[in-house]
Amino acid sequence: MAYNAPVSDIAFALTSLAGLSGLEGNPAFENYDADLIDPILEEAGKLARDVLAPLNQTGDKAGAVLEASGVKAAPGFADAYAAFRDGGWMGLSAPEEWGGQGLPKVLGLAVMEMFHGANMAFALCPMLSFGAIEALLAHGTDDQKAKYLPKLVSAEWTGTMNLTEPQAGSDVGALKTKAVPNGDGSYAISGQKIYITWGDHDVAENIIHLVLARLPDAPEGSRGVSLFIVPKIMVGDDGSLGEQNGVKCIGLEQKVGIHASPTCVMEYTQATGWLIGEENKGLACMFTMMNSARLNVGLEGVGVGEAAWQTAFDYAQERKQGKVAGVQGAAPILHHADVRRMLTTMRAKVMASRAICYACGVAADLAEVGETQEQRDAAKLREELLTPIAKAWSTDMGVEVASLGVQVHGGMGFMNETLAAQLYRDARIAPIYEGTNGIQAIDLAGRKLSMAGGAAMTSMLAEIEATARSARETNDPGLVQIADRLNAANKALSEATDWMKRMMIEDRDVALSGATAYLALAGDVIGGHFLTKGAVEARSSDGQTRGRMTALAGFYAETSLASAPGAVASVTQGGQAMLAESEALFGIA
Amino acid sequence: MAYNAPVSDIAFALTSLAGLSGLEGNPAFENYDADLIDPILEEAGKLARDVLAPLNQTGDKAGAVLEASGVKAAPGFADAYAAFRDGGWMGLSAPEEWGGQGLPKVLGLAVMEMFHGANMAFALCPMLSFGAIEALLAHGTDDQKAKYLPKLVSAEWTGTMNLTEPQAGSDVGALKTKAVPNGDGSYAISGQKIYITWGDHDVAENIIHLVLARLPDAPEGSRGVSLFIVPKIMVGDDGSLGEQNGVKCIGLEQKVGIHASPTCVMEYTQATGWLIGEENKGLACMFTMMNSARLNVGLEGVGVGEAAWQTAFDYAQERKQGKVAGVQGAAPILHHADVRRMLTTMRAKVMASRAICYACGVAADLAEVGETQEQRDAAKLREELLTPIAKAWSTDMGVEVASLGVQVHGGMGFMNETLAAQLYRDARIAPIYEGTNGIQAIDLAGRKLSMAGGAAMTSMLAEIEATARSARETNDPGLVQIADRLNAANKALSEATDWMKRMMIEDRDVALSGATAYLALAGDVIGGHFLTKGAVEARSSDGQTRGRMTALAGFYAETSLASAPGAVASVTQGGQAMLAESEALFGIA
Repeated sequence: MAYNAPVSDIAFALTSLAGLSGLEGNPAFENYDADLIDPILEEAGKLARDVLAPLNQTGDKAGAVLEASGVKAAPGFADAYAAFRDGGWMGLSAPEEWGGQGLPKVLGLAVMEMFHGANMAFALCPMLSFGAIEALLAHGTDDQKAKYLPKLVSAEWTGTMNLTEPQAGSDVGALKTKAVPNGDGSYAISGQKIYITWGDHDVAENIIHLVLARLPDAPEGSRGVSLFIVPKIMVGDDGSLGEQNGVKCIGLEQKVGIHASPTCVMEYTQATGWLIGEENKGLACMFTMMNSARLNVGLEGVGVGEAAWQTAFDYAQERKQGKVAGVQGAAPILHHADVRRMLTTMRAKVMASRAICYACGVAADLAEVGETQEQRDAAKLREELLTPIAKAWSTDMGVEVASLGVQVHGGMGFMNETLAAQLYRDARIAPIYEGTNGIQAIDLAGRKLSMAGGAAMTSMLAEIEATARSARETNDPGLVQIADRLNAANKALSEATDWMKRMMIEDRDVALSGATAYLALAGDVIGGHFLTKGAVEARSSDGQTRGRMTALAGFYAETSLASAPGAVASVTQGGQAMLAESEALFGIA
Repeated sequence: MAYNAPVSDIAFALTSLAGLSGLEGNPAFENYDADLIDPILEEAGKLARDVLAPLNQTGDKAGAVLEASGVKAAPGFADAYAAFRDGGWMGLSAPEEWGGQGLPKVLGLAVMEMFHGANMAFALCPMLSFGAIEALLAHGTDDQKAKYLPKLVSAEWTGTMNLTEPQAGSDVGALKTKAVPNGDGSYAISGQKIYITWGDHDVAENIIHLVLARLPDAPEGSRGVSLFIVPKIMVGDDGSLGEQNGVKCIGLEQKVGIHASPTCVMEYTQATGWLIGEENKGLACMFTMMNSARLNVGLEGVGVGEAAWQTAFDYAQERKQGKVAGVQGAAPILHHADVRRMLTTMRAKVMASRAICYACGVAADLAEVGETQEQRDAAKLREELLTPIAKAWSTDMGVEVASLGVQVHGGMGFMNETLAAQLYRDARIAPIYEGTNGIQAIDLAGRKLSMAGGAAMTSMLAEIEATARSARETNDPGLVQIADRLNAANKALSEATDWMKRMMIEDRDVALSGATAYLALAGDVIGGHFLTKGAVEARSSDGQTRGRMTALAGFYAETSLASAPGAVASVTQGGQAMLAESEALFGIA
């Protein structure tokens, strides 16, 4: 039941699918060359397998607990965190200026996929630190950066995001937490925040909270929200730790999964904080954290999906049940065609979502360091387009694949003692937090399709068409059939896209009623594009990789891509049938 | 968060969709007429709402516990069981000869849907008794019937099914429990059984275990399995209770859900049992229980789905978030198109699966009491065809819909305190037990399609075509569009059926690799057939029902039926792409 980091699949996805090679030779990454990929992945894989994975089920069972002194992480987590910290993993893709290694972000994301897969509850802690680092890099003053970044990058301290309040979930603008100027440049922050991941713990000596709050007389709604830095323990100008700040965890949520990740109710009582970014521009700062977190949450889906597939594959090789031609005695259930199909579904979808997430990561890197403005602009559009898909499609996939993992286990899958059962519970949060998947769909349909005159999706569609062409040009009958499926699916996506862009103008409610179906279609097709690319690229790989990638692409083409044309109606017609009878269905117009 | 029995939806499904009226005037049901439906559903609905539903979350939290004296049900469950027993619900569709009310089975199933929806962990107890009653009715001797049936029908005693052993799950024939003749007509049963639902408890005074075991020198495998009656407490010839038998619960499983349903490890130590049915024909007897249980498990999917939809609809009306045109202040999330779409998906699929299950129930009734042999034969084929679909499609639906219910709740849905979270956990067992959904798919593709020269599916396809025709003949543009979708979907199902029948002969592995996709397609199309029928039938109903049924059918047609043609490749091509590269994917040929 060990988690084994899928180093070769990850390396293949990075180099052959996501375009990591486009970052080679980029002056921003002078430390980077392709020879680093395998050693980094191998080393991170060891931490995942040997340190994090063994704590996954024990952490689920024990959970984090709230004591008088604060939150105590599950047994072993403090040591595991120390190993993570000492390995320098937090700084992998942080700037050298602040103690990082200056490597591409996408490498850091690949490493995070492993940590999520090995122990999602644990990995949430550095994931939040990562968001805090991004926000400080983008919006912090030089003093703020100097004070906080080195400790966050070294992982001596951790970071949190404090957005949600009981009345302000998806609608962040409804928050009420107050920030009153103290007259010395600092603010007194008071209010309650809920669902704060790793909001308190004992695995690091300080916690840097990034808190959304409202200045006195700030405009109502999201235009009156500002972001503040609130350390758990006050930090002197020399970096020394001082008094406890006015913030504490007053409750832990009892959740369906990720038990070892403390989900805190945080109380701020005249806590001292400092503005980050401009007054009333907190939402923009928050989106810096959010965008990075969204992609990272997508990787939770990938990581948990990978863990579910591995666990199910292991079980299918061990568990014997029933007779099969050619096998003496009871056969491992892997020999049953239906079990193989579940496993293949899992593996194909995990690989597709991995490619989508990494491609988004490469785009995020290029959007910052691309060598021409044109390249940076194009990459930014690609990143913006793929972020909601990476988040929503990958996390829905994670739930589906974890559920299939349970099914492969039969009755054992419903027992809390199995990892499969835990993954089913853990996976379920990812479609919810960092913007529900419905919010992602609205973001995709409402904002991302209209950016730059629709250029983001137009260029994606063109790239998919090129992939289909390259598959057809191999003249390999298997690949030609995949190419035909991809082409038809791409036409369907194009048709649905045109409808969505038009309908967002003509009737926004009708458009939004198809948004989730549209995102699902986009993810299905873009995922198929990457698997097709994989089958083409793998022609020059060894027989095993070639066979595997061809099978995954072929299976996916017949199961997911073949369904794409029929899914257009789901986008364009489904919502209309519903909205026409709103009164009868919902009792409201 | 109360569960409100959906009496009008259930009555509509029974009478307008499932064909309950075909049982009116049948001499076997002289107690039955249509006026009884509403009062029975209302009364059962009260028990569900007032007694069972309030214990659903408390039961989840407390669970059943194993004490020295045996298993103690969760607090309140014994009283709830007494209310269930005193209401006479166990005997609703049992023969009058044994104390029942002699009403159609399908009415009993409709009532069970409510109990499953209100409290699935509770409803499992009578569900298992129901299976024991069916087995005794079909295979018991007159003495056995006289001894056990009155007490089971009155619910004074409960029943269990003891099949699974650690090495014998889906492959029941691998079981090892022994039955040695005592020389007095009884047998000494010894062995261990696992996953025994309500295997022990304190809510009734006796438990009648039906136990699969192997006689000395019995043939290996499933042909050497016999079924035995093993009472927990010995029953004298006068019906009096005597000594404790050699059976006890030695452990309770810690499960993902249905915590209040004790899942027992049972140890049989020279327990006294009596053969039921013929020697070595236990599997046939077991299938009597199993078939009834499979349909009942399908209704768990329906019931939990209904509960999830209701809970989500309630929450969507209460929870305010974000602004919407036409609503002052923050709007209930029900106003957001994406939330409505989730709710509509839930409701449409619940209604479709309800109709499939009830139609299977009506067929089960007619298979027994149809007035001509021809009618009985046709009904038996329909029952056999629909049973695996009712079980698998409805339970997969239950998981999907419960997961959507979580999503509607946002962060709250991941908190154990919400019913939505519990339903997500509870629902997950149903695709596994009583034959995994993969086993159902193999049963459908491998056995049900070939019965009577394929007549079962042929007549189903013809009926679907007739439904499409009747929808088209209304000349209502909305219904005509639904009819077109249904027709195209039906053609797709027909094509996939032809392929499956042929491939089961030509290459069984290839066929079975498409079995789950085939069952999903069949369920999608048959579900759409019933919703279409509902839209046609509702034309003579009040405006509210008409609007609702039209919207559900229209929505389903564009979302599920429209995808059916594209799903044929998933059945016919998906497995081949996978099996061709088995070595690369699985390391085995």
